[in-house]
Parts: sequence; C-alpha cells; structure tokens
Amino acid sequence: MNSSDSAKLFVGISQLVTLAGTEGPRRGSGMSDLSLFQEGAILVDQDRILAAGSFREISALAPARGARKVDLGGRVVLPGFVDSHTHPVFALPRLRDFSLRITGVGYKEIAEKGGGILSTVSTIRETSEPELAEQFQERMNSFLECGTTTLEAKSGYGLDLHSELKILKAIARVASQGPLEVVSTLLGAHAVPVEYRYRRADYIRLVAEEMIPSVVKHGLAEFVDVFCDKGYFTVLESEKILKKALAVRLKVKIHADQLSHSGGAKLAARLKAVSADHLDHVTSKDMAALKKSGTIPVLIPASNFFLGTKYAPARRLISQDLPVALATDFNPGTCPCWNMQMVLSIACTQMKMTVEEAVTATTLNAAYAVGRGDRLGSLVAGKQADFVVMDVEDYREIPYYFGVNHCVMTVKKGQVVYDKLGLASQRS
Amino acid sequence: MNSSDSAKLFVGISQLVTLAGTEGPRRGSGMSDLSLFQEGAILVDQDRILAAGSFREISALAPARGARKVDLGGRVVLPGFVDSHTHPVFALPRLRDFSLRITGVGYKEIAEKGGGILSTVSTIRETSEPELAEQFQERMNSFLECGTTTLEAKSGYGLDLHSELKILKAIARVASQGPLEVVSTLLGAHAVPVEYRYRRADYIRLVAEEMIPSVVKHGLAEFVDVFCDKGYFTVLESEKILKKALAVRLKVKIHADQLSHSGGAKLAARLKAVSADHLDHVTSKDMAALKKSGTIPVLIPASNFFLGTKYAPARRLISQDLPVALATDFNPGTCPCWNMQMVLSIACTQMKMTVEEAVTATTLNAAYAVGRGDRLGSLVAGKQADFVVMDVEDYREIPYYFGVNHCVMTVKKGQVVYDKLGLASQRS
Repeated sequence: MNSSDSAKLFVGISQLVTLAGTEGPRRGSGMSDLSLFQEGAILVDQDRILAAGSFREISALAPARGARKVDLGGRVVLPGFVDSHTHPVFALPRLRDFSLRITGVGYKEIAEKGGGILSTVSTIRETSEPELAEQFQERMNSFLECGTTTLEAKSGYGLDLHSELKILKAIARVASQGPLEVVSTLLGAHAVPVEYRYRRADYIRLVAEEMIPSVVKHGLAEFVDVFCDKGYFTVLESEKILKKALAVRLKVKIHADQLSHSGGAKLAARLKAVSADHLDHVTSKDMAALKKSGTIPVLIPASNFFLGTKYAPARRLISQDLPVALATDFNPGTCPCWNMQMVLSIACTQMKMTVEEAVTATTLNAAYAVGRGDRLGSLVAGKQADFVVMDVEDYREIPYYFGVNHCVMTVKKGQVVYDKLGLASQRS
Repeated sequence: MNSSDSAKLFVGISQLVTLAGTEGPRRGSGMSDLSLFQEGAILVDQDRILAAGSFREISALAPARGARKVDLGGRVVLPGFVDSHTHPVFALPRLRDFSLRITGVGYKEIAEKGGGILSTVSTIRETSEPELAEQFQERMNSFLECGTTTLEAKSGYGLDLHSELKILKAIARVASQGPLEVVSTLLGAHAVPVEYRYRRADYIRLVAEEMIPSVVKHGLAEFVDVFCDKGYFTVLESEKILKKALAVRLKVKIHADQLSHSGGAKLAARLKAVSADHLDHVTSKDMAALKKSGTIPVLIPASNFFLGTKYAPARRLISQDLPVALATDFNPGTCPCWNMQMVLSIACTQMKMTVEEAVTATTLNAAYAVGRGDRLGSLVAGKQADFVVMDVEDYREIPYYFGVNHCVMTVKKGQVVYDKLGLASQRS
C-alpha cells in the first residue's frame, strides 16, 4: 500500500461517536444524539478530518489518499475531551486542607489556619516561571493520557501583576510546545489578596487597569474570568472587571452562583459571557436569562463530589433547553481531578445526566464553552482531528467502569500524541 | 555488589506505610497510626519481608544478604490492597441497567425489564468455564495494576449446582496461575433463581445440602456468604445455610443490612462471622454485637456512590471501636469499580474517614476480613512481601488526586508482578 506521510485511516473502531449534525452547541434532547457508528472509520489528512463515519463508506475513500492504516482493535473512539475550566498552575497539592476538611473543618477556618486559595498564592509567588512551567508540563501529560486534547487554564494564584503574568507566561510556554491545546484565562479576580484586604477598590483597579492591559499587550490571555460570589467579588466589582475585558476584546467567563445565589449567572447573561461556571445555586429565572444570552452553563460536579456539596441542577438546566457543558475544575483546593472520564461518572451517577448527555457536555458543548465549537468537539469533515481511543467496546463503559483511565490513545491535530499500546506503530 | 536471586532491597521510598505495631485488626484511634517512615526501605527474601523501616537501618542489613537494589525513585510504598468483597466473574457489563437507573428506573423495575442479578445469571449459565476464566484473568490484571494483591471472589451468578461450581472452578483456575491471591467464596444464596420462585425452601436446601458439600468435596471455597436482606434471603434462611457452612468448617460472611435493617449484622455476630458487609442500615445495638463477636465490618462506599444511596455510618462504627474494612464490591450491577484507590477517595470525601483510617481499612483490616491478617496487610518482618508503589510523594495524594490509578509497581510474594515504569530492571 502506498502511504503518504500525512493521510491516515483509523479502523477497528467498535463504536465511533461523531456528534455530527446541526451546527452550534446541543440543547435539550439534542444532547442525547451522539451520531454513533457501530463500525466506524476516520480518514485524517494532516491536522484535519477528511471524513468520519461507517467503515464501509470511509475506507472506500482511503486508497485514493494513500492513507496509512491504523487498526484500533475494536475500541471506542470519541472526540477529544475539552476541559473548559481548570486552575492547573499551582506549586503544591493542598493535602493539609484535604485532611482538615475530612475532620469537619470549614472553608473559612481552613483559610484562618493558613490554608485555602491564599496559601497557594504564597507558594506561587515564591516559585519561578520555569519551575511553574515544568510542573504544568507534567500535569499536561496526565490530561493528555486521560483523553483531554484541549484545556482551558486560568491564572489566579498570583494576585499581583507580576505573579499573574508569571503564571500566564508559564502557561504560554507550555502551550507553545504542544501537543495539548491551551486556552488561557486571566483570573486576577480569584480572591482579594491579603495586602488589599482593606482597599478592595484598589485591587479591582489593579485587575482592570493594570492586569488586563498587560495581558493584552503581551497576548497572554483569551478570556477573563472572575470569582463572583459571597466572600469573593460582588456583582458590581465583577462587572467592572469584565466590562474592561470586553472593551479590549477579551472574552469573558464567570465563576457564578457556586457558594450562594449571588447573581453571577444573571451578570453572565447580561454581559453575554461565553460561559457561566459552577451554577450550584442557579434559579429558573437565571436559566431563562442564560438561554437568551447564549451563555454555556459549565457544571463542575467533581468539585461537588470532592467537597461533599450540593450538585448543580443538571436535569433542570437540560430540560430548560440549555447547552450544558462539564469540566473538571482541576485545582489543588477543591478538585484535584484531571480525568474527564471521572467527571462523566459523577455526572451520570450523581446528577443523573445520561451517558449521551455527559459525552456531549464534555466534547462538543465544552468546545463551545471555550469559543472553539466551530473547530473542535465533534468528528466531522473539516474539523480538527482531535480524538481519543478508549479501551472499551461500548461508550457507556467509560463512565460505568469508574475510577480509572480507559484512554489508550490520544490524537491531537491528526498526530498520535499518546499511544499506550503502540497501536499506531503496528504493521497492518 | 553480589546479588542473590532472591534477596531484594527496595529503596527510594519517600514514605513507607508499614502499619507495624500491635497484633490484630486496628480499632478506633488505632486506625490512624500508619507507622510511617519518611525515608524507608524494605528488605525482601524470597516471598517474605526480612525487614521494613527506615532507610538507614534497613539498608545496613542488605549487604550481608547480597540483596539486589531496586530504586523506587522517591515514591510511596504501602501494603498491597486486600479487596475483601468482589463478584468478579460475570459475562457482560450491565450497561442497560446503568442507563435505566440514571433515568430513574428502580431496582425492581429493572429486574422486571430483564435486568438485575438474574440477567447476569442467564448469561453466566450460557458461558463456558474456560471463557469465564479468561474474562476473570483479564480483570485480575486490572486489579493488580491498581495495587490489589489479594482478592476475595464470590460465585453467585450461577444459582444452580452446576453453574455455581463452574464459577468457582473458573476462579480456582485463575487463582492457581497467580500472581493475584484469590480467596474463594460460595454465594449460592445471592438471589432465588426464577425456577425456585415458588419453592424457596427447596432452593435453601439446594444451597445447604448440595452446593456446600460439593464445594467442600472439590475444595472450591473457603467462605460461604449469603445476601441476607429484604427481597433476598431472610435471617432464618440465611442462618440455615451458614450453620451448614460452619458445620463443615467453612468460614462465613454476610451481605448484611444493605437495603434495609433486616437483621444481617445481628446474625453475623451470633454466628461469629468473619465479616459483615455493607451495613448501610446498621444500628448501635448491631455495632455492640459485632464488636463482641470480633466480626469485621466491611463497608462498600463505591457501591453507594454508583447507586446514589445512603453511605454506611463509618464514623460511628469507628467511634464504637470497630475495626472497619473497605472493599470495592466489584460487580456488573451495582459497582463496576476495581480500583481500591477510588474506594479510598470515596471513603474520605463521602464518609469522612481520614486518609489514615481508609488506608488501614483497605490493607490490614481488610486482610483480617478474609482471615489472613496474620500473613498479609502490613509490612513487618516475617509477613508476606505484598506491597505496591504509588507514583506520589505523600500517601495522602492517593485519595486526593482521585479518579485515576497511581500504582506503578505491584509486588506479590516478593516478586515484581507489575512494573509500569520498568523500575525493577534499571541498573543501580
């Protein structure tokens, strides 16, 4: 068989989840349609999908392209996970907070004992950018091996101009090396740092008037996010920061209504934010507003699991025709989980999302939550060839056999970037 | 350095969890003491531990033994997990039940739609013993790779003499090949099969008078277990079966008070069962009885997670000075999870067991739950060399970074039986 360097035909796919169909994020019953092929194939050229569908149809197209065949041995293929909400740059795990929380010590008391977000801030400020980049690089591999091909990454543990830029530079350094695609978000407004405790307005100004312009100048972020909640930033403060972001053409996200019904979702709708994240305390009125604004609700159930808190009302959001997405919220305090498959399991068992809804929420809808739905999140001709191979025969086994990693191959931009079983190097 | 074939010195251990100390299962505050060494080493000869403790002390003993050095690169070592409650021999995953349950269909209705335990029974009866053994063998590798070195395995999906023996023979076939150590349990009384629906007494007789004697004759089980609960077997029925087991010197376990407070724990105490498992509805009175009888309470939180049901009162059991153990309950209906690390995460976050209590409950106390506490479950001189290497620096990271497998090496009877990173073959 003639082989070109660039074209590849992936076969031996017991089930191919394509999510082909209508444009735009999936809502309501649309989230249940995976456009599944029982014996599938994918034809890839360079970084793009030429065709994806039934084996019979797709394999007929391959010879003309001189495609090299990769046999996946009867496994499930789905779009690479898009993890649209993470805080992956931190120096150390917060193991003491974890142990304290188990024994019943609350969030506030943990902070008073020197834990919480601000404890990560002190270590981050003392860590150099290359060190942060090296740690992030290692974590990036963990994400890739679990099937995440695109990752939103927030700053937010620096809380001064220099340290926030340092984190974003570490992210940019890792992002430039690939293969994981990284979406950068400035989260200068993650918490008010100790030194600004009694002059909050100055901190808001610092974020809006110094951090945001610097980030734009150096091209270090695509999104700005604010932790809009009780004890963090008020709706008014959040609005000031996010309006500044919008004015300089950055996109916005909001940590909304996680700890209390504090108005974050409503603000997200008013600003037409790309996503509103958490939403544990969202109301029907908020849902209607989010629907109108086209904001993607990003749910974070692994964090609820880890903290033992109330889950967001996923079923109500879906029945209100909202295009729900799911993310890990990977961070050292409230969700040290990088495996999107675990998020699927938690979403299915605890929030009663169906497997199909959860798969849609971690791929196509999640791509829209980072403004990349036109290029990522489904396996259709012309889209980027980002997909993963799971060591199961039926896609429902991914959340069913929980607590492990089923991913054995990750393909990013048409390149095999992780291949546990050496499937891509086998002679066919 | 002279190397003998048999002696090995494991070094490069950032933290060594030995659980050395008093004999017997650990109770109350005793569950918090891991006997941890910050820089540890283990000296192994053949299948036994010669010494385990601080690097300085243990490494001094090695030259005299001509021990070969294995450097674990600064990782955590703990005793191999003992998974004391599993149903690992089934033909197919129950994916349809999983999807139905998410949409709110109950246990009873699922059974009526052809799902539930009895659906596994029909497929098992049609599957040959070599096929069952092959599937179990594959699953065994999954357990080993996640750090389980000893596994209790129940029958219970045959529900006729031939099929129950077939399952136990498949278990015996796999067990004889190693390296996983398997503890066999006859669970003929897992459910009343359809054909005995209107003559339950005949089925009890079948289990007690035919299955148990056959199992003894062929040496196919060490334990007998009964699902003593509402809709399954009454206390009286369970007692008949278990007394027969005790009469022929088999040990007993009980599925107790899982679905309702139906008297299983009290029966376990009266019969001095080795373990009483589940205990979601256990009372203070039951706890006192279990304490007196020395029965190990085995909790199954991953099943509560998967089903979304009430967790057993772990904190109350521990405060009542009971030696709590934890198991996966791996099975196709109510807990498709083989990773004991995930059980640790669920126990810590949902039942508020401390990390130290959960580690004790999955190792030393779990060894007692299968009657092997004298030989397994802790790393002290003279015990079997069963231990695992986790790719973390601090043992608390094992439940903290949840939803993945941290195990990179499994050592069973002194042999390296899984070595993801090739650590044992590196030249030092």
